Amino acid sequence: MKAFACIAAAATLIALAAPASAQFAKPEDAIKYRQSALSVMGTHFGRLGAMANGKVPFDAKAAADNAEIVANMAKLPWAGFVAGTDKGGNTKAKPEIWTEQGKFKETNEKLVVETGKLAAAAKTGNLDALKTAFAATADTCKSCHDAFRNK
Amino acid sequence: MKAFACIAAAATLIALAAPASAQFAKPEDAIKYRQSALSVMGTHFGRLGAMANGKVPFDAKAAADNAEIVANMAKLPWAGFVAGTDKGGNTKAKPEIWTEQGKFKETNEKLVVETGKLAAAAKTGNLDALKTAFAATADTCKSCHDAFRNK
Repeated sequence: MKAFACIAAAATLIALAAPASAQFAKPEDAIKYRQSALSVMGTHFGRLGAMANGKVPFDAKAAADNAEIVANMAKLPWAGFVAGTDKGGNTKAKPEIWTEQGKFKETNEKLVVETGKLAAAAKTGNLDALKTAFAATADTCKSCHDAFRNK
Repeated sequence: MKAFACIAAAATLIALAAPASAQFAKPEDAIKYRQSALSVMGTHFGRLGAMANGKVPFDAKAAADNAEIVANMAKLPWAGFVAGTDKGGNTKAKPEIWTEQGKFKETNEKLVVETGKLAAAAKTGNLDALKTAFAATADTCKSCHDAFRNK
């Protein structure tokens, strides 16, 4: 089942990312799209973090709802990293996104997989499971930011 | 089934919207959140429009994928319209959002329902069904913009 979930997630990612270059009229549009999707994802991920870190009381229903949104949003931003969108807006994207495309795609796919696990963990209603999955997802965010995002 | 879908959609909306006021640290955060969610929704809705209006060839798989994203995104922005966020950022929100909350919520719920129908229509793979649902959804966007958004 896990392997299937990974393949399904990767297939979704490829399906969504494939026709990307033709889908934005201007580089700024692609930049705005990816930043918007990442921002919405970050808002909901932050709410999970507040619960995982004990800053707000654990609410199983809210955790499941937020994690599902995070998992859905995690599929979207990558289609916005089309060639030629390293400039043209207020972007922190490093050139490595385009010079190391294989590595970048791997981290994108890893996030889809990890956020899928996060949504599954949140659905169990178990705070420890949420904490574990939250930490793994946060690590995935960080490793991609370290490699591909300017400070 | 239709009535159930409406109730389920409305329940989702209420569940997501209810604890909103405590969920944004600053008015600007709420404004950025709702604008980001609306922007992502608009990107994918625009792709459906291009197919519905014959500007790009109809692609049933792409239509279904885009419509599903639109339906998911349609649930999100409304939680960002918390009290006190009529200012504090670059917002076009009219004061009527807060003085006519019942009417505003009605239009939010209508969009959730219409985009649910849009996703269902797109899944049929029938272009005429997509066109009909696209037009109904676009009307819903427009009526809310006319009433609640400054030009």
